Amino acid sequence: MKNGLFISFEGVDGAGKSTQIHYAKDFFEERGYKVSLTREPGGTRISEIIREAILDRTHQEMTHRTEALLYAASRAQHVEEFILPALAEGRVVLCDRFVDSSMVYQGRGRGLGFDAVRNINQFATGGLEPDLTIFFNIHPQVSLGRINVKEKGDRLEQEKMAFHYTVYESYHDLAQMNSSRIKVIEANQEVEKIKSEVEKIMTNLLRRDEA
Amino acid sequence: MKNGLFISFEGVDGAGKSTQIHYAKDFFEERGYKVSLTREPGGTRISEIIREAILDRTHQEMTHRTEALLYAASRAQHVEEFILPALAEGRVVLCDRFVDSSMVYQGRGRGLGFDAVRNINQFATGGLEPDLTIFFNIHPQVSLGRINVKEKGDRLEQEKMAFHYTVYESYHDLAQMNSSRIKVIEANQEVEKIKSEVEKIMTNLLRRDEA
Repeated sequence: MKNGLFISFEGVDGAGKSTQIHYAKDFFEERGYKVSLTREPGGTRISEIIREAILDRTHQEMTHRTEALLYAASRAQHVEEFILPALAEGRVVLCDRFVDSSMVYQGRGRGLGFDAVRNINQFATGGLEPDLTIFFNIHPQVSLGRINVKEKGDRLEQEKMAFHYTVYESYHDLAQMNSSRIKVIEANQEVEKIKSEVEKIMTNLLRRDEA
Repeated sequence: MKNGLFISFEGVDGAGKSTQIHYAKDFFEERGYKVSLTREPGGTRISEIIREAILDRTHQEMTHRTEALLYAASRAQHVEEFILPALAEGRVVLCDRFVDSSMVYQGRGRGLGFDAVRNINQFATGGLEPDLTIFFNIHPQVSLGRINVKEKGDRLEQEKMAFHYTVYESYHDLAQMNSSRIKVIEANQEVEKIKSEVEKIMTNLLRRDEA
């Protein structure tokens, strides 16, 4: 494995990404690979500073375009300072969220569009794409632990719910558009079942990579 | 004047932009216009926070792409929160630096290219362009107050000087590519002479705008 392997993990918060990323780390280390585990937004000192600016609750007036560009800026630093050097050393890089998150949250959730968000991220990453993306699929009603908000919630709750549905559906669109890169795992299952699906996907990836 | 007027001022630091911007402010106010004076990077609370991250001297490891995206993020906030509302109120917006600065400093100075930088700024501004740009032209040897660094300076000084020459030449390229928008004023003249050239350009702009 000359150039390392770059794997991103996608899905809404509460879909169980963290548990499975740590499992993936063990999987590769047991097979003798050096693994770098990282996350977005973040992963470097400057990316973390930008992350804080994005997530600061007092920054209510931040526009959607500013937010999308800050995510891209944080990612540019992460790619050039952390991910590319790790891949150049032949490491397996496991990344919690990557461009797909910007596509669904900023591109669709914020209504900026897939094309515009893909475009600025193309610049941010210099064209780097994951070798593989695992998407943990879970229905908003399950991940949010609520039923019937759509009918019974107040206006703000319904707006929030609409946002989550948009993100949910956009992940599906992305998975369909990138079916060879993005592998979908149903997250509403027992952890052991999910783990074995992750293992199967990793095993196939290594087989493909060694071929 | 229904939609205001947007005028940007460009040129290296030390070219005398600030003096002339304040003069332009007086010029318009004397004629009954409401004027908003602003600067980049900055102009809003969030833009200033981003500005600090860009200019922080401890952020030595910041990559060129990150820097370009942070300038764009700061600008996106400035445009949507400050410039567009002011223009909608019919105000004259005078802005110290705008997209052209990113074009010359990041696009050419940092080697990212005009196309890439234009591209991300197209997203940041939503396509907003100044009605007029005044570029204060001054030769690096004059603005930096040094002669013969090119021959006599050490390696670092020569690198810095090369950067300034690149910026200088790129401003000229931009002015040539946008000759109807960008008006060039020679900045190495007496202040009163420059002032009268600024006045002439403003007067023409008002005539054009009222026509």
